[in-house]
Amino acid sequence: MTDFPVVGVIGGGQLARMMQQAAIALGVELKVLSVGPRDSAALVISDVELGEHTDREAVLNFAHECDVVTFDHEHVPAEILNELINAGIRVEPGPQALVHAQDKITMREALTEAGIPCPAWQAVSREVSADEFVAAVDAFGQANGFPVVAKTSRGGYDGRGVWVLADGMQARELANQADLQNNANWLLEQFVPFTQELAAQVARTPSGQVLAYPVVRTVQTDGICTEVVAPAPGLDDETVAQAQSIALKVAQALGVTGMLAVELFDSEQGLLVNELAMRPHNSGHWSIDGAVTSQFENHLRAVLDLPLGATGLRAPVVVMENILGTESTPGYSAYPGVLAQDPRIKLHWYGKEPRAGRKLGHVTAYGEDLDEVVGRARFAAKSIADQ
Amino acid sequence: MTDFPVVGVIGGGQLARMMQQAAIALGVELKVLSVGPRDSAALVISDVELGEHTDREAVLNFAHECDVVTFDHEHVPAEILNELINAGIRVEPGPQALVHAQDKITMREALTEAGIPCPAWQAVSREVSADEFVAAVDAFGQANGFPVVAKTSRGGYDGRGVWVLADGMQARELANQADLQNNANWLLEQFVPFTQELAAQVARTPSGQVLAYPVVRTVQTDGICTEVVAPAPGLDDETVAQAQSIALKVAQALGVTGMLAVELFDSEQGLLVNELAMRPHNSGHWSIDGAVTSQFENHLRAVLDLPLGATGLRAPVVVMENILGTESTPGYSAYPGVLAQDPRIKLHWYGKEPRAGRKLGHVTAYGEDLDEVVGRARFAAKSIADQ
Repeated sequence: MTDFPVVGVIGGGQLARMMQQAAIALGVELKVLSVGPRDSAALVISDVELGEHTDREAVLNFAHECDVVTFDHEHVPAEILNELINAGIRVEPGPQALVHAQDKITMREALTEAGIPCPAWQAVSREVSADEFVAAVDAFGQANGFPVVAKTSRGGYDGRGVWVLADGMQARELANQADLQNNANWLLEQFVPFTQELAAQVARTPSGQVLAYPVVRTVQTDGICTEVVAPAPGLDDETVAQAQSIALKVAQALGVTGMLAVELFDSEQGLLVNELAMRPHNSGHWSIDGAVTSQFENHLRAVLDLPLGATGLRAPVVVMENILGTESTPGYSAYPGVLAQDPRIKLHWYGKEPRAGRKLGHVTAYGEDLDEVVGRARFAAKSIADQ
Repeated sequence: MTDFPVVGVIGGGQLARMMQQAAIALGVELKVLSVGPRDSAALVISDVELGEHTDREAVLNFAHECDVVTFDHEHVPAEILNELINAGIRVEPGPQALVHAQDKITMREALTEAGIPCPAWQAVSREVSADEFVAAVDAFGQANGFPVVAKTSRGGYDGRGVWVLADGMQARELANQADLQNNANWLLEQFVPFTQELAAQVARTPSGQVLAYPVVRTVQTDGICTEVVAPAPGLDDETVAQAQSIALKVAQALGVTGMLAVELFDSEQGLLVNELAMRPHNSGHWSIDGAVTSQFENHLRAVLDLPLGATGLRAPVVVMENILGTESTPGYSAYPGVLAQDPRIKLHWYGKEPRAGRKLGHVTAYGEDLDEVVGRARFAAKSIADQ
């Protein structure tokens, strides 16, 4: 009959939801392993299995019906993924790459080994006493300056699992109250006084084709991405090339397949890698409306080992603004006003229940003039989030 | 909880499938009433009910769970739609508009009444004898020239239900063998020696907002649309304005809501209306990749009475080419070659089983130069249809 492949996505969040738009075009069938039946992706995909990504049996049963398995998030335990591979199931990206997005210490070790510029960093065992933790932070701060950034090596996201420690006293408070989940250890990092944050995305296929997207400027508020401007305004060609080259090097060094996002600090020390994501990423949502090929389509193409699509911009300036929930997010009832105000705005709603601080959707504006485009995007996002 | 509406689509074809891409972005939940579980749209929509569009009970049950009902095709009987409306269900476009897309005689009467230019036409009852039919064709041909086009007033599509009669002998053959389905009558139409075929699309909301898309040139082969070029090359501004004005007038005169496509002959007699479609239409598939707002998004916006999105082109030239099935359509196995050849081509596959002459998908190319863009689109479509 048809030889079109089935792609299994573990996790039912908005990334899987937006992958579905690309899958519909490519004629590729998407299956999703979702925790709840009303999760963002489960609402828009016909083939949903319910289960936790940590449930070995659920993941194995799910994967056996797929030609290739990929991810909405990086939290599937490597042991389970290795079992899939041993059972002959294709997993993209594979656990040997994914482990670097799961564990920030493993990531720092690999990047440092590969000669990729990082902030100064140091691993501290979860087993240390409060006194030992304070001493470690103090010593690290003395060498690299205060404040010191402390992170849980596993399981943090959107600003959670990250603490900025001004001094030893704050280190003691943290040691006394923090409860490291997921068998995580401590990662201490130099606080980088960056001038701006950038993100460099690449897509890479198992056959080794790699394509870079334009480098973007990201704005984080309280650890959550709020705005992305493509291309990063005013960035000189050399820095663009350097950011893309770092991302390509990371993809190759770690054997990433699918989309890779490298979040970078642009600082006096030059570009330093902050975080990695091995999946479509918030910094690439602009590409749905703003690039020839969206990050979601290129993620699918990459995990299927198909040739990648062009990554160029479709407008001089593209701005993505997240819609962050508030207590009074009006959602749909704000649509008429927003859509009438700006017939060129592109709305993306994730089907999630409004909750304060939650990413409910995003808007994309594009055009010629940075200020005008930023203004349109911010107005629309603000109107929908909290009219 | 959430106040996002549920849109019910009757019919599980590729139009409902592509509406799902737009629904995912808008956060609008799509339900589909589909004949089979493997129909094009049923594969990609989570909420599928199985049933025929002619099954009164199936349609009523389906519609009761929807905030508004719209269509993948125009074949739902008006009696059923009137029942829905009497039950308080919103139906867009309503039966009073849709009847003009269901019955070509009703359409010709209404357009003529509204002063919209049509080929010469004449209705002939299904009850006439073969002799009477031949006499009617002869008289019509004498007045308007041979050949004479005979159509079934109801149920024809993609070239089916249309006959070109060179003379009275062919009229007799047709009368002897034709079996008019759906209680249809005969519609005789003047054969128009057109220089090209055009399509003008508009979106119209229940509140009366109307927006026109750029006028496109369509190419039909054996009655099936094969190629669409946006904007129609070399068309003078006056003809563009005239085509758009005809479409707006039709939308208003017939009370259409959602997308309306008006297929036009560009001829020595000027522009003449050929056919109408009250839904997203093949002549507008280019808009997914080539317009600010796709016809599918504007159809949903319109049936929800939301403000319409901008309809402008995103590139100087956009070309859509249908992928028509053959005995040996390779489908997915042609992807690597096609995608490697042209990283900017946009593929759309409908998830249907290959069959000779069946619309399996389409490709869209865009760029600056007409010949280059047409060449890319044709190459890709041909490669996927029959390598």
